[in-house]
Amino acid sequence: MVENVKELLKLHEGIKHEVYLDNENSTVVPQEVLDAMLPYYGKLAYGNPTLTHKPGWEAFTAIMTASKQIAESVGAKNLEEITFTPGETEANNLALMGAAAANPQKGKKIVISEIEPINVLNVTDLLKKQGYTTTKVPVDKEGTLSLEKLKEAVDKDTALVSIHLVNNEIGTIQPIKEAVEIVKDQNPAAIFHTDASDAYGRIPFNVQDLKVDMATLSSFKILGPRGTGALYIREGINVERILEGPIGTQKLWPGIENTPLIMGFAKASELAFSNFNANVARMRYLRDKLVNGVLQTMTDVKFNGATGDRRSPDNANISFLRCEGEALTIELSLKGVYVSSGSACSRRLLQPSHVLVALGRHFSEAHGSILMKTTRYQTEEDINYVLDSIPSSVERIRGIVGSTGVD
Amino acid sequence: MVENVKELLKLHEGIKHEVYLDNENSTVVPQEVLDAMLPYYGKLAYGNPTLTHKPGWEAFTAIMTASKQIAESVGAKNLEEITFTPGETEANNLALMGAAAANPQKGKKIVISEIEPINVLNVTDLLKKQGYTTTKVPVDKEGTLSLEKLKEAVDKDTALVSIHLVNNEIGTIQPIKEAVEIVKDQNPAAIFHTDASDAYGRIPFNVQDLKVDMATLSSFKILGPRGTGALYIREGINVERILEGPIGTQKLWPGIENTPLIMGFAKASELAFSNFNANVARMRYLRDKLVNGVLQTMTDVKFNGATGDRRSPDNANISFLRCEGEALTIELSLKGVYVSSGSACSRRLLQPSHVLVALGRHFSEAHGSILMKTTRYQTEEDINYVLDSIPSSVERIRGIVGSTGVD
Repeated sequence: MVENVKELLKLHEGIKHEVYLDNENSTVVPQEVLDAMLPYYGKLAYGNPTLTHKPGWEAFTAIMTASKQIAESVGAKNLEEITFTPGETEANNLALMGAAAANPQKGKKIVISEIEPINVLNVTDLLKKQGYTTTKVPVDKEGTLSLEKLKEAVDKDTALVSIHLVNNEIGTIQPIKEAVEIVKDQNPAAIFHTDASDAYGRIPFNVQDLKVDMATLSSFKILGPRGTGALYIREGINVERILEGPIGTQKLWPGIENTPLIMGFAKASELAFSNFNANVARMRYLRDKLVNGVLQTMTDVKFNGATGDRRSPDNANISFLRCEGEALTIELSLKGVYVSSGSACSRRLLQPSHVLVALGRHFSEAHGSILMKTTRYQTEEDINYVLDSIPSSVERIRGIVGSTGVD
Repeated sequence: MVENVKELLKLHEGIKHEVYLDNENSTVVPQEVLDAMLPYYGKLAYGNPTLTHKPGWEAFTAIMTASKQIAESVGAKNLEEITFTPGETEANNLALMGAAAANPQKGKKIVISEIEPINVLNVTDLLKKQGYTTTKVPVDKEGTLSLEKLKEAVDKDTALVSIHLVNNEIGTIQPIKEAVEIVKDQNPAAIFHTDASDAYGRIPFNVQDLKVDMATLSSFKILGPRGTGALYIREGINVERILEGPIGTQKLWPGIENTPLIMGFAKASELAFSNFNANVARMRYLRDKLVNGVLQTMTDVKFNGATGDRRSPDNANISFLRCEGEALTIELSLKGVYVSSGSACSRRLLQPSHVLVALGRHFSEAHGSILMKTTRYQTEEDINYVLDSIPSSVERIRGIVGSTGVD
């Protein structure tokens, strides 16, 4: 397998221009963020933050400062409301399984949207073993949650509701404030969690305004390092540890806090928020240029998800009819354009994205979708290069007999 | 709290010599390891290793190479036997909870030693909720597991046995090969896990020779970055995921693999094993110099744990009678000597280490213990500085009335 991959890599030799747009799955960490992390691997604050010596106190001070900054970035009341986890996946697991474990009296129903990210959707499968049932609320053709169906789904036996703020695949912004009102109106005891990984740093939001009980934040999705993330838990909401081990400065995730990664996360957050409007305007401009460039010049293409203010500024998801998505990502890679095919999460199974299927897309459209996310670090030249590369790659695949299935 | 800590940090201004010996809790990452990680934050292999584009294939190749190297370092048969986790804590949780979930037919008893690390000990508490009971096998005064008591403890209802290879606090090497034979003799179906975090890179071992079914490895304890670790799982042993989310190249821990941290872990492993005997000799020489220096010049001190070949070469654990351990770590910190007090894991609770209590130490001796671990990066000058610093610090604390409790 590794040998085959090495052969594939050889085919890329001589690429002149590279544009990385697969920021859904992994991101390049900017030098400024690395510069914020590196001292914490060396002489500064490498200690265990709970201990009684200088490097430990330095680490403690650094982590408290980072917690406070991240708490403020979402409007949390205090830094104790922030729990660092090894990533957004672990944060979503902690939110759902930890709240379920701590609140057995609240009932045995979980309500989610039918287009939740995999790391919420699949956690509800684990909770099935504990007797929980999950109701999936449908979305419309643009991926917007049905508030009426949400109201019907929530009852007195609903312990937890988890609905993401921005969809990771199609960028649709969910009406979370309204959703929380409906849920609390139906059942004030229900706990409301939102996976805000794809909203943080890209759309403005505040946990006080949304009135959510818990929110998941990702480091790598704001160009921080992978290996850290955070769960906001409103004071008064009971959550239990789901794993055990030594307890550091925070009580809900075991193990010694990861000072360098947390400092990188905090720096990435600072960079995202210190110039928020300009950053977002940049992502949006590049994304719009990319999407409009494709839609205006190509036939048999469909834009997936919501538009305008109801969509995250970085997200472009386009279906190319009669064009297998995976083949397209390979074809584009050979030109130095790196995108993901449909939902990266389901890609290994060669199944179409559950999100696109929920939007009512035909199997072949879902299969032929590609997901691209812009960042503030891309240039107009980058986008022009992508727009030059896509049409010939799509045409090439459309020309290969039998590559597409039926449509 | 942060303000108080800042005041404490001010007291450290002007320190001339610093020696970090708290390698139990956190380590300084060598530049060579950082150099192996940094390319993976930038242009090289930043992709999701499961995807179909150049950076994804680069990441895949890098991770497969790292897995293979780590698999070989413990004698695993193939790289599929290695699962990367966010750290040794998560690896221990996966080993116990994942094996319990996958093997409900094997019985409801867990057997551990009474001096297991907290991230095994406390996981058995989580399993109590699922109906498991835990038997703790005693150790002798040097911390060596009683094989007779182990034999008595294991029966047909024993699903899991988890006994560490080297104790993290006192460095005692456990007779794991003999323990596995006894366990399999009593019940061939029982699964044997060992937390080898404190053995890896310090004592030679091989999973084929030990015949363990699972082994936990730590990155930071071999001077790699925190945020990664691994669980060796012998082919044929069933373990289930304990958290859910997107599945990458490995199936037992969800989420996208952390390429930079895994590459750092692999580099740290390469450095530890490429010059194993010399590295170990260096740790042992410095450790012996430290221990002998204290024992030969000071009164009312006790060495904790085993000696000679039955002890890990890096571990020094010494009790200073009539001397509160936490006060001593602060006193030493003011001189630039950074050590940990008793078990770091239980430190926040101001409880004496469960390990030292199990060895039959008086409460005040357990409280007055300090733990120091040497690495190949320390110098003789460093150890001389520590030996110069300890006596006056201990005397100062012994002189403070009421600091010690009864003895």
